[in-house]
Amino acid sequence: MSGNTLGKLFTITTFGESHGPALGCIVDGCPPGLELSEADIQPELERRRTGTSRHTSQRKEPDQVKILSGVFEGRTTGTPIGLLIENTDQRSRDYEKIKDRFRPGHADYTYQQKYGFRDYRGGGRSSARETVMRVAAGAIARKYLRERLGVSIQGYLAQLGPLVLEPKSLSTVYDNPFFSPDPSRLEELENYMVNLRREGDSVGARVNVIASGVPAGLGEPVFDRLDAEIAFAMMSINAVKGVEIGAGFASVSQKGSEHRDEITPQGFLSNNAGGVLGGISSGQDILVSIALKPTSSIIVPGRSIDVDGNPVEVVTTGRHDPCVGLRATPIAEAMLALVLMDHYLRHRGQNADVVID
Amino acid sequence: MSGNTLGKLFTITTFGESHGPALGCIVDGCPPGLELSEADIQPELERRRTGTSRHTSQRKEPDQVKILSGVFEGRTTGTPIGLLIENTDQRSRDYEKIKDRFRPGHADYTYQQKYGFRDYRGGGRSSARETVMRVAAGAIARKYLRERLGVSIQGYLAQLGPLVLEPKSLSTVYDNPFFSPDPSRLEELENYMVNLRREGDSVGARVNVIASGVPAGLGEPVFDRLDAEIAFAMMSINAVKGVEIGAGFASVSQKGSEHRDEITPQGFLSNNAGGVLGGISSGQDILVSIALKPTSSIIVPGRSIDVDGNPVEVVTTGRHDPCVGLRATPIAEAMLALVLMDHYLRHRGQNADVVID
Amino acid sequence: MSGNTLGKLFTITTFGESHGPALGCIVDGCPPGLELSEADIQPELERRRTGTSRHTSQRKEPDQVKILSGVFEGRTTGTPIGLLIENTDQRSRDYEKIKDRFRPGHADYTYQQKYGFRDYRGGGRSSARETVMRVAAGAIARKYLRERLGVSIQGYLAQLGPLVLEPKSLSTVYDNPFFSPDPSRLEELENYMVNLRREGDSVGARVNVIASGVPAGLGEPVFDRLDAEIAFAMMSINAVKGVEIGAGFASVSQKGSEHRDEITPQGFLSNNAGGVLGGISSGQDILVSIALKPTSSIIVPGRSIDVDGNPVEVVTTGRHDPCVGLRATPIAEAMLALVLMDHYLRHRGQNADVVID
Amino acid sequence: MSGNTLGKLFTITTFGESHGPALGCIVDGCPPGLELSEADIQPELERRRTGTSRHTSQRKEPDQVKILSGVFEGRTTGTPIGLLIENTDQRSRDYEKIKDRFRPGHADYTYQQKYGFRDYRGGGRSSARETVMRVAAGAIARKYLRERLGVSIQGYLAQLGPLVLEPKSLSTVYDNPFFSPDPSRLEELENYMVNLRREGDSVGARVNVIASGVPAGLGEPVFDRLDAEIAFAMMSINAVKGVEIGAGFASVSQKGSEHRDEITPQGFLSNNAGGVLGGISSGQDILVSIALKPTSSIIVPGRSIDVDGNPVEVVTTGRHDPCVGLRATPIAEAMLALVLMDHYLRHRGQNADVVID
Repeated sequence: MSGNTLGKLFTITTFGESHGPALGCIVDGCPPGLELSEADIQPELERRRTGTSRHTSQRKEPDQVKILSGVFEGRTTGTPIGLLIENTDQRSRDYEKIKDRFRPGHADYTYQQKYGFRDYRGGGRSSARETVMRVAAGAIARKYLRERLGVSIQGYLAQLGPLVLEPKSLSTVYDNPFFSPDPSRLEELENYMVNLRREGDSVGARVNVIASGVPAGLGEPVFDRLDAEIAFAMMSINAVKGVEIGAGFASVSQKGSEHRDEITPQGFLSNNAGGVLGGISSGQDILVSIALKPTSSIIVPGRSIDVDGNPVEVVTTGRHDPCVGLRATPIAEAMLALVLMDHYLRHRGQNADVVID
Repeated sequence: MSGNTLGKLFTITTFGESHGPALGCIVDGCPPGLELSEADIQPELERRRTGTSRHTSQRKEPDQVKILSGVFEGRTTGTPIGLLIENTDQRSRDYEKIKDRFRPGHADYTYQQKYGFRDYRGGGRSSARETVMRVAAGAIARKYLRERLGVSIQGYLAQLGPLVLEPKSLSTVYDNPFFSPDPSRLEELENYMVNLRREGDSVGARVNVIASGVPAGLGEPVFDRLDAEIAFAMMSINAVKGVEIGAGFASVSQKGSEHRDEITPQGFLSNNAGGVLGGISSGQDILVSIALKPTSSIIVPGRSIDVDGNPVEVVTTGRHDPCVGLRATPIAEAMLALVLMDHYLRHRGQNADVVID
Repeated sequence: MSGNTLGKLFTITTFGESHGPALGCIVDGCPPGLELSEADIQPELERRRTGTSRHTSQRKEPDQVKILSGVFEGRTTGTPIGLLIENTDQRSRDYEKIKDRFRPGHADYTYQQKYGFRDYRGGGRSSARETVMRVAAGAIARKYLRERLGVSIQGYLAQLGPLVLEPKSLSTVYDNPFFSPDPSRLEELENYMVNLRREGDSVGARVNVIASGVPAGLGEPVFDRLDAEIAFAMMSINAVKGVEIGAGFASVSQKGSEHRDEITPQGFLSNNAGGVLGGISSGQDILVSIALKPTSSIIVPGRSIDVDGNPVEVVTTGRHDPCVGLRATPIAEAMLALVLMDHYLRHRGQNADVVID
Repeated sequence: MSGNTLGKLFTITTFGESHGPALGCIVDGCPPGLELSEADIQPELERRRTGTSRHTSQRKEPDQVKILSGVFEGRTTGTPIGLLIENTDQRSRDYEKIKDRFRPGHADYTYQQKYGFRDYRGGGRSSARETVMRVAAGAIARKYLRERLGVSIQGYLAQLGPLVLEPKSLSTVYDNPFFSPDPSRLEELENYMVNLRREGDSVGARVNVIASGVPAGLGEPVFDRLDAEIAFAMMSINAVKGVEIGAGFASVSQKGSEHRDEITPQGFLSNNAGGVLGGISSGQDILVSIALKPTSSIIVPGRSIDVDGNPVEVVTTGRHDPCVGLRATPIAEAMLALVLMDHYLRHRGQNADVVID
């Protein structure tokens, strides 16, 4: 299978470039009978949208999603769901100057190497704009998981550059433009971003995502483990450089007597496993953490080469996010929803006997 | 596709349990004409093997691989390669006592939840014994990559519990039972393990893997990115809880001006990207780092429940590795080889025009 | 993978219902560098279009295709190609009367059984309208195959009910509304259709397709044989009930000495194999023949049941094709192009060494 | 995915050549809890076996299957099932003479073209010996379908060369070496085969397969239709040149008023559809018919070329079947079982809501 499809039974296939006419997605395998309309998807797109605070790209896109198929009289029919979002605020002229040069830290160089040729407008297919369709499709998965299985998925910004945030108030995460889980730190985050913008630089971030209410038994070892598929989905998000499940890299220096999560008749006593044992969900919360690199589109000049191999200096002005991690929370939530949905259907297909018999 | 197949064009499908009669693998998609015999695979199995030092499980398995198909007159034919390794040292009686109880930190509980039933002997399919077939198949990929593309893959132990190791001498990694890249630290590692065994406890580890000579252009965005597939493959290894590419989690606190790898006509000036930009290899070294949790099979007693939900105390004696990370280096190398091989074939299929035209 | 994707490396995923707002397709895996615009696709859509003769459904759709991604400055970029065709002539009211009853010979009954619920307007997803996207995607494959490999694909109507047509003039097939390969039989076909319409009945047809210039070596045994994939693709077309390769069912009564195609230094002496031996193309013409059943949407009343199981009489008025086979030629050509394209890329991925070394 | 895997959720992956040490198969995705032992598989292998009558190849293979994994205490565990059959009666010397020449009508030529190189012993991977693993895996699917869903699958020889057989007594099909459904024709078949052998020639055959008790709702349109997958699976059997569902090619000359299967509250009044409407099972019997070509391994000399392109004469002595169709019944039954099993699991995964809600 080509590279633009995710999932085995609940699959999404996406298309679209940053500066093309539209982005689209086909969601195939959604069970029939789910109540669905654009109103179920639009709010999650709003959360992801640029231009909603002065700390993100100033590109203004309404990101209005249209459902083109797969829904009849307000319910999914079991046939593929076509989703479309038109691009309206492309300023391709901004990009003429990078036509023949490779921005350091960008996919410009590798797309040119792979395909011999590239759509240089706004990064083309490599743009984070592509993630809008992941969020749209993820909204469908999330609705199904919530309504049918009682699964809830919540992400938050866990670190912005040097500032580590504690999950003090998860219910307020969506109320601030940083997805901060600690309302007392908003001014600090604000000031950090103002200074960063002044420097013309960017910074990395860490985002955590938690899924609660996931039934035990999801995941298909030995390769298609639930944690492996989560790692895949998360690492496929632009700018992600690391993924942890549960204790993650902290487990390197843990002892076994400390790491193993003991079990009592009342449940597990800890969650170093992050809700996955042997590649299968245990019923505990799924805990995922990802590292996002600082975006490379900065005003600080950088050395690079042009398509002919000559040295050039690159300064990226345009409209860019100084911290892509600030907008990653809804995307990471969507990816987790998509993986869980696919694995729920896979488990049901291969193991429904366990429940039925 | 069910969960025991890895890859799209160069695929491996495995079977086998810890205490069953044999483990096997079908390698499908290997190009024809590669010289291949058991002698190409056996040395990599030796490196993974247990019982070679007193710091790993004392199970003694010759791990003698047989090629059952796909090779004729010393060369691959393009048809599937069947591999088989017989189990010879199963002591299933050791496991009678865990038949009805779940070892904390193990897959016992989740396999029972998923399948309603489990092969409890030595962890059954969830045992790390399963990785022997990954190493066998990886040896074929590695040979092809080395001979046809000049790719070399090298892993090493980067951290054992609190002991961080620097890559001072990669050429000596295979000469010591720890896969330590620093020969001056061997006594320290030895002492650490002796003390750990005395405590009856286990510890985590970090393993790094580097692939050099990888051509630019491998990876199929937006989902099947090279880094996403690497994360998937690594997280599918038993006990892995985290994966990093390049700067990994360190990029969270980096500035963009620091992280981006500047380019000159002579090449990249740094490698924070870890050899992957936009999900596509850049031609730089691929840098991967993984976290392995401490094994849960320890002598220190732990609380758990039995299959009926009653509280029990679990003490794991049997033959176990106090640090599974000590044997993870050949496995991680194999997984990286398998991903690169698959992506090389996929790139060739979809983009050979770039080279040809 | 869910059921709306065809192919492994050159994949198409489609969505859309007969009476929804639009139909769409994502073509993933098209090699970069192919010159492509809507003008390459539109002519093939014209050939498939309804309303072009009085013998096909009088639904009037312009079937104007839009390319939404994957093409930049007139050439494919290697990223997914989004295609969209809006529906403009839906008369859903025509279908109110079949809302609660199952037309015999239609998918009404089975969609209701499978999904518990169905979009009854014009057959919803089961409508032959869905094939418009196959033809659009097929046009891309066909262009690539023609320009890069010199493959040409030609279909024709081989039988209409009792009238068997000989391939006397393949170059005139597209010049008549029947896709007849024998211009001397047009009046006879015309009269047959006029009488059929008068009866309010429908009739079956046979369509043949030939691919010339296909390189030897395509097909991936033992399951993904070229002929097996062709059979799959053809049988996935609405109304197809049989598929033959080469001599097909005639080989049942052939002797081996008659069937086997002898070879001389100048080439094969016959083509009973239809261009495929052992599931791999031989370089001879690929010969495919398919049977299309008579459509079930006829005026002659038929017995059926309603959704509650009560007996009803069904008369289908609406706008329907009295012989769906009349429009199947471009669809069958498209499907053959899609299979060949996918297998060309797969062969190149897995066996390019044969050519290169 | 490479070409040696069949299915999406219930998958089989096979390996092995005619004259290699063994053939094997991995069945992945079998639900847990099915009682299974070698004794469930062996009888179906016996039915397929050569050497059981004087009308089939005189190769004597015990075809003793071993289950190497996936079964514990007599029940499937949900993990992959490894199957192995050792070859014991290879006479590779028989094939030295075809080493450098292509038997007409065989895969010799195309394997050489595709892979640049071939295992010429007994046809290597292209040998019908490969189907032994299809039958072994099919036995597992068949057992599950029979025990859990009440599906029964029955094939028979419908035509041998010019001799058309009526299904007069399906219960006696397995009692005669021809799989004839008409016990009164056995002598006639016997005489026909004796004469054929005397001529040194071979002949084609038609085999029909019926599946009864299949639940309505199986099949995943628009591509992965049940009938399309059946056509794929059947055409992937060696020597098959045509596939029909229900009325098949007879529907070409049918009228719609004749073909459509009318429905009453008591059920369908006919079965021209062959149990599939719109690609989804209707609950009626699934009716499949396949054409098998006459084998090309005959004593009558034929013209061909050698690997250097020089003209040669080929006479195939060795041990061959004068009618491969005589042994195709168990293989076709197995393929139908495998497709139905996979689609049952797929339907359950994607549509269990229909049943559950």
